[in-house]
Amino acid sequence: MRVGVLGSGIVAQGLSARLAELGHNVVIGTRDADKLRGWQSSNQRVLIGSFAETAAHGEMVINATNGAASLSALSMAGEENLADKILVDVSNPLDFSDGFPPSLSVFGKDSLAEQIQRAFPMAKVVKTLNTVTARVMTHPLEVADGDHHVFISANDADAKSQVTDLLKSFGWIHIFDLGDLSTARGTEAYLLLWVRLYGAMNTGMINVKIMK
Amino acid sequence: MRVGVLGSGIVAQGLSARLAELGHNVVIGTRDADKLRGWQSSNQRVLIGSFAETAAHGEMVINATNGAASLSALSMAGEENLADKILVDVSNPLDFSDGFPPSLSVFGKDSLAEQIQRAFPMAKVVKTLNTVTARVMTHPLEVADGDHHVFISANDADAKSQVTDLLKSFGWIHIFDLGDLSTARGTEAYLLLWVRLYGAMNTGMINVKIMK
Repeated sequence: MRVGVLGSGIVAQGLSARLAELGHNVVIGTRDADKLRGWQSSNQRVLIGSFAETAAHGEMVINATNGAASLSALSMAGEENLADKILVDVSNPLDFSDGFPPSLSVFGKDSLAEQIQRAFPMAKVVKTLNTVTARVMTHPLEVADGDHHVFISANDADAKSQVTDLLKSFGWIHIFDLGDLSTARGTEAYLLLWVRLYGAMNTGMINVKIMK
Repeated sequence: MRVGVLGSGIVAQGLSARLAELGHNVVIGTRDADKLRGWQSSNQRVLIGSFAETAAHGEMVINATNGAASLSALSMAGEENLADKILVDVSNPLDFSDGFPPSLSVFGKDSLAEQIQRAFPMAKVVKTLNTVTARVMTHPLEVADGDHHVFISANDADAKSQVTDLLKSFGWIHIFDLGDLSTARGTEAYLLLWVRLYGAMNTGMINVKIMK
């Protein structure tokens, strides 16, 4: 599949490398291609593009930009390049204005995922993977042999199904369908617990398992 | 131990009944004693008091009031009746102004637990149990044979240790020390995920296990 990954940080790099490893045709999109030259030298199957080139390339587009910059990055990607496509949102609206641990810039009665959906109504936004660190997103078996949950929220059932298949290809065993996109309010808010777990455990190689 | 439980809802009732069952000397505190007469008829070891009488009774006091009413209930309980005591806060600042699912009235850079600590600086506030439903608080073995986590946040190490012992007496096996009271921002925010898990699973007899 042709996948466009928007972002140049470790989340975008990790997703791009993993997708390429799995045989997908990947373009990673950035404002500043020079930032990715070093990384690309050991990931030559991934091409570098502008946000617009990257979104145009993808049959599926992944928003792996900084949450604070996601709406502007997606605007540069272009509404026409996102229309009728699955837009996987793995970002979090982290607010570091008071340092670490962060707060959130969107919360409670709204979520970044819903803001993105409203701004790009023709895209099929799927929220997932935002509750784990970059390495766990793409290599879930490295935590507790995969015995933990990733969440998925979307309004479009077919988009949710396709992204579920992608998650399985990464190694995810337990994929929890939370419901429509408004349930992203829950997974985004969870980040405030995640940063405290990270603080207490001193590692990001952690996740939750839902028990009943 | 003499315990004062503030509140008259199912959380306060459940905690009071369990504490009495475990041999503690329990007073449950309410604005309206008539609301508890029926319940008390089958829980005769628990006495009913005003907020102030209940707080005065307790060597340990538990805030199990509605989060929206907690600060005013604690004011009625009286600063002098809370001073130098452990004040266990199990409440959540749920905001139902837009119906279900709720948002939170405090969030991100503050928490209800910290608001309570600031309002009653002589109390030793310990946040715990707020991430599970009333029945799971007091009967953790009824979910996955107890194989899941409860969190605890407090500034006072001795208070945290005493409440940890109380949690063990309820049957809790995995008690996760998140750190100081500011970590309650994480467990309170998690409620927004919890309500979505509840919505998807159609039961509150659930919890999370931290995996690494």
